[in-house]
Amino acid sequence: MIGAFDGKKLRRLLASAVLTGGPRQTVLGIGGDSLTLMAGPCSAESEELVEECAREVSRAGCRFLRGGAYKPRTSPREFQGVGEPALRWLRDSADRHGLKVVTEARDVSHLPAVAEVAHLIQIGSRNMQNFELLRLAGKTGVPVLLKRGLAATLEEFLLSAEYVLEGGSSVVLCERGIRGFEPWTRNTFDVGGMALLKHLSRWPVVADPSHGTGLREIVGQVALAAVAAGADGLIVETHPRPEESLTDREQAFPLSDLQELCVRAAYVRSTVRWSYLLP
Amino acid sequence: MIGAFDGKKLRRLLASAVLTGGPRQTVLGIGGDSLTLMAGPCSAESEELVEECAREVSRAGCRFLRGGAYKPRTSPREFQGVGEPALRWLRDSADRHGLKVVTEARDVSHLPAVAEVAHLIQIGSRNMQNFELLRLAGKTGVPVLLKRGLAATLEEFLLSAEYVLEGGSSVVLCERGIRGFEPWTRNTFDVGGMALLKHLSRWPVVADPSHGTGLREIVGQVALAAVAAGADGLIVETHPRPEESLTDREQAFPLSDLQELCVRAAYVRSTVRWSYLLP
Amino acid sequence: MIGAFDGKKLRRLLASAVLTGGPRQTVLGIGGDSLTLMAGPCSAESEELVEECAREVSRAGCRFLRGGAYKPRTSPREFQGVGEPALRWLRDSADRHGLKVVTEARDVSHLPAVAEVAHLIQIGSRNMQNFELLRLAGKTGVPVLLKRGLAATLEEFLLSAEYVLEGGSSVVLCERGIRGFEPWTRNTFDVGGMALLKHLSRWPVVADPSHGTGLREIVGQVALAAVAAGADGLIVETHPRPEESLTDREQAFPLSDLQELCVRAAYVRSTVRWSYLLP
Amino acid sequence: MIGAFDGKKLRRLLASAVLTGGPRQTVLGIGGDSLTLMAGPCSAESEELVEECAREVSRAGCRFLRGGAYKPRTSPREFQGVGEPALRWLRDSADRHGLKVVTEARDVSHLPAVAEVAHLIQIGSRNMQNFELLRLAGKTGVPVLLKRGLAATLEEFLLSAEYVLEGGSSVVLCERGIRGFEPWTRNTFDVGGMALLKHLSRWPVVADPSHGTGLREIVGQVALAAVAAGADGLIVETHPRPEESLTDREQAFPLSDLQELCVRAAYVRSTVRWSYLLP
Repeated sequence: MIGAFDGKKLRRLLASAVLTGGPRQTVLGIGGDSLTLMAGPCSAESEELVEECAREVSRAGCRFLRGGAYKPRTSPREFQGVGEPALRWLRDSADRHGLKVVTEARDVSHLPAVAEVAHLIQIGSRNMQNFELLRLAGKTGVPVLLKRGLAATLEEFLLSAEYVLEGGSSVVLCERGIRGFEPWTRNTFDVGGMALLKHLSRWPVVADPSHGTGLREIVGQVALAAVAAGADGLIVETHPRPEESLTDREQAFPLSDLQELCVRAAYVRSTVRWSYLLP
Repeated sequence: MIGAFDGKKLRRLLASAVLTGGPRQTVLGIGGDSLTLMAGPCSAESEELVEECAREVSRAGCRFLRGGAYKPRTSPREFQGVGEPALRWLRDSADRHGLKVVTEARDVSHLPAVAEVAHLIQIGSRNMQNFELLRLAGKTGVPVLLKRGLAATLEEFLLSAEYVLEGGSSVVLCERGIRGFEPWTRNTFDVGGMALLKHLSRWPVVADPSHGTGLREIVGQVALAAVAAGADGLIVETHPRPEESLTDREQAFPLSDLQELCVRAAYVRSTVRWSYLLP
Repeated sequence: MIGAFDGKKLRRLLASAVLTGGPRQTVLGIGGDSLTLMAGPCSAESEELVEECAREVSRAGCRFLRGGAYKPRTSPREFQGVGEPALRWLRDSADRHGLKVVTEARDVSHLPAVAEVAHLIQIGSRNMQNFELLRLAGKTGVPVLLKRGLAATLEEFLLSAEYVLEGGSSVVLCERGIRGFEPWTRNTFDVGGMALLKHLSRWPVVADPSHGTGLREIVGQVALAAVAAGADGLIVETHPRPEESLTDREQAFPLSDLQELCVRAAYVRSTVRWSYLLP
Repeated sequence: MIGAFDGKKLRRLLASAVLTGGPRQTVLGIGGDSLTLMAGPCSAESEELVEECAREVSRAGCRFLRGGAYKPRTSPREFQGVGEPALRWLRDSADRHGLKVVTEARDVSHLPAVAEVAHLIQIGSRNMQNFELLRLAGKTGVPVLLKRGLAATLEEFLLSAEYVLEGGSSVVLCERGIRGFEPWTRNTFDVGGMALLKHLSRWPVVADPSHGTGLREIVGQVALAAVAAGADGLIVETHPRPEESLTDREQAFPLSDLQELCVRAAYVRSTVRWSYLLP
């Protein structure tokens, strides 16, 4: 064995759980025996959109409302999100419909405002190695949803989580697709990596099939795949009228199909006790 | 949109089914409403091993016995498979236990012998663009299981299938993981790509979670994920005593756990009617 | 043409220079007809090391002293750099030996101190899409050396540069290797991407063969390759005793070989007028 | 160190030259102190084109005429090359202009005809692990130009060369770009991997900047980069009127610029004694 993959070495890692050992954790009820569903618009574009989504997201059986107030955009000339007012819309609508809020802090300067409304602070893919943001988010005491970087190894992902944990917050790991050579999907959802994370980490692992595929036609299939592979939850971008979404239009899942997806995800979960399958 | 991913363009492709249009096909009963399970040893090392596997594979509810007589090996100094005698063992054991045979032709010179015993001729990942092999395999009239190349785009994969179809054989597409940067898994199982293949092609799509992960600890999870994403079948490397396997030891799934895996796969299948989820 | 690579489309981009058009720029003398060499230790570990490096870096013919005061580290338990005192060492040694300073701001909180001593503020690979850092670095007025992200497309790289340019600072682009599947090199130095950047952008482009390879045995070859492909400069990690380096030991280039490398780079530069070769 | 890149381990490999040890070899004058240039059309489309190219290729100072008689094509409905007549055109024109022939055998059935005219048999990227073709090409006794696979590690590449060497032929290794995520270049030319090959193997290493980039605008820059990094030769696709090329039009280098490129390559070579730079 000269090359990279070394099953024996990895098996030793699995045995010692060296990276993030200790008893399994749940975070805000995420993890353990439950399946936690999170959904909402890519960006919280207007109060009406947020409210419309919250109502349907709650009705579909989700526990979290997602939505971006601060959008990380590749170009400085793209729509950057509504900002602070959107945070209020999210929390108000969430409260009205019995949901919790997960929303992104794109920068340390957003942390105070985000920490005030969010039950779960999202740190995005591009910031997975923004160590100061990780550290300070960890010090808010609010749990953190950490997304895997576009080209991050599992080891790097777990070590970034350590930056958050050092601060004191608990963490939820989120697989959201890695960059690959395939031009027909936006990203390559790494279902095997996610499956392995479940063995390596004691923290909950959720899946984002929206960014993981970039294509609403397969969001449902990949969502169910993630659940079958052991995901503790899903975070899905939805929109009542996908073609009108200001951001990430191609991957917006129709709000009207969300309930069906949630029901099927629960079915799949109930038939899979993934841990049993570990030889 | 300057970069690679263009959802609108892909949506047009999906609409026109331009690549491999026509009514949906089944091949040897693979496809349609059924879930087809294939299992067996990586290489058909001995008559006893083949027989032991065939018995358990049949008992677990699989329909196909897999096993390699000719193994493609990275180095010329590695074990290259038993060759022609192994073909006979496979067919005899399969017949005894009511199974069909799927086995690889690594080279055009193997085609006559393989076509005689195999119900389904496997063309391996390294040969996905060995066009002469594709063409001649297509002319045997025996259906072909075509594995996706390590770095093949979905477009290249579908176009390779066309080489087989031109010859006259029908084809089963097999996703088996692509090469990525992650050192902890042998390959990156592209569940999103597989989901998309189901929409783009009218031919059955099966999944190989063994090569797709390289790690027996997550073979089960990825197998179920593939089924949840719409796979028409699974092909799994099993061994009664994984640590004794001469080839691909790290990914050999214990024969004793196969039945459990098959039962769970059937459950997942029954709760997923993937096509419904296409918005 | 269904897939990703579309030469005609790119050719139109090249013709219109749509992304960052305008006359060619030099930054602190980087660009134009000159070749600018930058070298120094990975991290500024001690005053003595910095002084020893500065003396040799100047003697070898380099114009910039590099060195990290704040090191971005994958794990929170690794050495994170000396911090502010190191900034002073760098500037003092640089001044003594007629060099300019290039050093990294890992976070917005470092900007004031870094902007005070640095002639060129480095923004590292992990921060290429840390948009707030880009924006605020751009507002310091100090030129910025922007490193390409590990998995950033050229388009994303150029758009990140726009965040800096919007603030008012000028920018130097730095290719430093992308993540690939090859386990024997730390990164894949994208010499073709760098060559293309020279056509697409009017800002100078430099190369980092240290991170680009991770292996001191080939740093020299890749450095010369970058110059041959049109790089306006090189930034190289050196150490008087590579095996004692606290960080990135494997890629530290021996200080004693630096002069030889600089001389050869100048030779290569003089024989290549890359722009001539554009058909 | 848990992840993939392990400089120490690689350093041990470099020290022992374990893979393909022994004294350095030259093949048909390729290797050693010389720089060998090979050029010609992508496909040998007509006798006139071949003759026109051969004349200019010879005039530019190249030693080999390249050209494809059998073209490996992604789709069965694309132009597959002229076949056997093209082999004759290549040899006749080469003889007339004092050149040697390098041309591809896409399949074992082509070997007899190709071995009759070619001084150097090319095995293409898609066939790097077509082990039977490697073996039988090795038995012709004619030297083999082996191209690196699209997603092949250096280890796999070197092991494929062993299949050829076992047969008795000598081998020339050719880096031609690997598959990456960047949509603006067709492939990612791995200059670092090529530099490392020079240390790991005793066989000559040449570079193909045409497939390595897919874009004629940067073929020249990448060609010189490869020479600067230690390449023993270049193989370049040229065409008198690139826009009329039947295959790989985007990357065809104008025949009228070939001489200039060759002169510059020789200059770069003369200023680089790469081996000196190994610390």
